[in-house]
Amino acid sequence: MSTVDTPRVRMTPERRREQLLDHGVRLLSTRSLDELSIEALAEEAGISRGLLYHYFGNKQEFHRAVVARAVDDLVAVTAPREGEDLVEILTESLEAYVDYVVANRVGYASLVRTAHGGDEHLRELYEQARSALTGRMFERAGETGIRSLGYDDTPATRLMVRGWASLAEEVVLGWANDPTAMSKDDLLASLAGSLFGALDAAT
Amino acid sequence: MSTVDTPRVRMTPERRREQLLDHGVRLLSTRSLDELSIEALAEEAGISRGLLYHYFGNKQEFHRAVVARAVDDLVAVTAPREGEDLVEILTESLEAYVDYVVANRVGYASLVRTAHGGDEHLRELYEQARSALTGRMFERAGETGIRSLGYDDTPATRLMVRGWASLAEEVVLGWANDPTAMSKDDLLASLAGSLFGALDAAT
Repeated sequence: MSTVDTPRVRMTPERRREQLLDHGVRLLSTRSLDELSIEALAEEAGISRGLLYHYFGNKQEFHRAVVARAVDDLVAVTAPREGEDLVEILTESLEAYVDYVVANRVGYASLVRTAHGGDEHLRELYEQARSALTGRMFERAGETGIRSLGYDDTPATRLMVRGWASLAEEVVLGWANDPTAMSKDDLLASLAGSLFGALDAAT
Repeated sequence: MSTVDTPRVRMTPERRREQLLDHGVRLLSTRSLDELSIEALAEEAGISRGLLYHYFGNKQEFHRAVVARAVDDLVAVTAPREGEDLVEILTESLEAYVDYVVANRVGYASLVRTAHGGDEHLRELYEQARSALTGRMFERAGETGIRSLGYDDTPATRLMVRGWASLAEEVVLGWANDPTAMSKDDLLASLAGSLFGALDAAT
């Protein structure tokens, strides 16, 4: 239907750029950021390299735009839903996170590596994502977040939640590489349990 | 006394290299790996850059040697002592780790960043260190390690211990940057508690 309403030739530059980012994020699911070249995207999208440089300037800008989009996607798919049962909501968010990492394993692992490494801008994007992912545990989900379970929002609990996010990242990437270590249900229970273990330990 | 027994001019090349690494590790405590130049070490050690290149070949080899030594130091200072009370032994090891990170904050943070980033050799050194630090929880300390507390040595518990190591790294670096979040005793209790929380969650 949309092809009738908006013929491809009349697509706005913004919409076209978004579509190219879709391609980029899709490519990133099965390859590392290093392997994500302008050439690969040009081939995938069926357009010239020149046009891609027109949209993204250079490879670094292209990478930043793809990572920003991937990070937005991750924050969106793991957003906790409204509801009362916080443990259930958390487990659903964790499952969405696990599914995301499994589906985008190679690219996600490279993103985590890169975020720790050189490019300050990518590091910042990664930090923002982590702040969004952990911060909303206090603010969203059942309105008051984990505070409704009796955990105060203190520098100490914030620090432990950040630490737990590192645990979750390490464990989920490890599990995605070798899922024989435990069942997915056990994985989700282990992640939720270790969060409360970390919070209990801090309070 | 040693200056009488072994005058400086007769120091073996191996011993001299070790001494230069001592200087390098000391420099790394207050600066990042990027800032650890051959020039800085030459100045610190009072020898020529040329001689340093003679000992280490190039900057990359020099960095690898310093990081290998720093990692050995970390593994050594946090080695669990013999004994019965595993929680006490663990807490002592954790305190040594916290003290190490606080004393070497800038260099350690850069080492963690670098280990996640580009240089494959440095990443391997870091992985070895982490394997040593976490593996001995199963093998050393009270002979059978955490198995004596009733935790089996399974792929699942190994995965959670690796995850907890990421938590500990994140939390201790965060705390070293801002120690107002909690007291050192609370930090140690939080780290130990979250380890058992993670293990409990996995079993």
